[in-house]
Amino acid sequence: MQVEINQPILAKNDELAASNRALLAEKKVFALDVLASPGSGKTSTILATIEALRDEFNIAVIEGDIASSVDSEKIKAQGIAAVQINTGGACHLESDMIRRAYDVLDLDNLDLIIIENVGNLVCPTDFDLGENAKIMILSVPEGDDKPLKYPGVFQAAEAIILNKVDTMPVFNFDRDAFYGAVGDLNPAAPVFEISATKNQGVEAWAEWLADRIRAIQ
Amino acid sequence: MQVEINQPILAKNDELAASNRALLAEKKVFALDVLASPGSGKTSTILATIEALRDEFNIAVIEGDIASSVDSEKIKAQGIAAVQINTGGACHLESDMIRRAYDVLDLDNLDLIIIENVGNLVCPTDFDLGENAKIMILSVPEGDDKPLKYPGVFQAAEAIILNKVDTMPVFNFDRDAFYGAVGDLNPAAPVFEISATKNQGVEAWAEWLADRIRAIQ
Repeated sequence: MQVEINQPILAKNDELAASNRALLAEKKVFALDVLASPGSGKTSTILATIEALRDEFNIAVIEGDIASSVDSEKIKAQGIAAVQINTGGACHLESDMIRRAYDVLDLDNLDLIIIENVGNLVCPTDFDLGENAKIMILSVPEGDDKPLKYPGVFQAAEAIILNKVDTMPVFNFDRDAFYGAVGDLNPAAPVFEISATKNQGVEAWAEWLADRIRAIQ
Repeated sequence: MQVEINQPILAKNDELAASNRALLAEKKVFALDVLASPGSGKTSTILATIEALRDEFNIAVIEGDIASSVDSEKIKAQGIAAVQINTGGACHLESDMIRRAYDVLDLDNLDLIIIENVGNLVCPTDFDLGENAKIMILSVPEGDDKPLKYPGVFQAAEAIILNKVDTMPVFNFDRDAFYGAVGDLNPAAPVFEISATKNQGVEAWAEWLADRIRAIQ
């Protein structure tokens, strides 16, 4: 049942995603889709990434949330353009929502658009937004077993950020178990250990992303 | 679009939920649906709840996950019957899955069935499983702003557990902001502060649940 119902939605979404992708390729703008659970530190990671890259690149952010605009306000407070999308109840962003955000952004003068998807380890995985890369964030307090329980998102991600690593002593996070499970699911994806709010470990992740952005320019 | 597509699914789900509810009412079994993000401590909270209530009540657990059986194995290791439901990719449990689990449980000799829904603050909210109560768990590391961003689940919950309160000094969790937002969304719901893995604060929560179970017996 799940498959039959989702097929037409996904087909329409994928058409619009291709159109989004063509538009951004023409404008030489890199789109990054960030997936994670609620409270894993998506906005903090995006803020730290902006700080690391804003000297070289012009950046905008699209914030997806069920409700509220608290995240986009945090981004705007740093002098970065941010478009808030409230999905009402939907647990993921879709290509048409992204296109409406693109329509209000100055694509001619941007290098990078960071899309903060709705906090959810399941729904956003299947939806192509026309992004250049999906990445995911797991935070240490969520536990080392998450790759076993949410394999799809770990497989969809081109890079994996492990956030809040400064809290590892507080939680029983088994680093070997985590890396073993991630290696089984997605051996090609680099894992970056960071503490976004303490701005630790952000350089390696930012350099990976910068290389990807430069490659399309 | 969202509404049109979901309506027939929800209608069929709600019919089966009513049937589940009638079956459990006849058997005098209380069903508790537990909603939370990935990694908020659902399984730990359920284990602590079992310890607090197992002398008085016969308990079984239904574990909902996208994949894996790590949670049901933890429950079974405590000598408690556990049924694992793997949803494949679906981000929530539905009534028909629950009914199949009921079919393999000994309802005549149970008082309480705890349903651990898929880790997700969005999708499970709309699905009636025929439970007696939905409750939710938020963990401190997820942040105090979650009621603003996921209002639906905070409104659907009859009780709210704030887990990992022992880590409050590590995170910038604004207790006043959290209680203010919860009070606006759902003033009737009690909030129980616990640390499930340290078995702190579980008594008040367990007593609330025990009262609800006794009321249907």
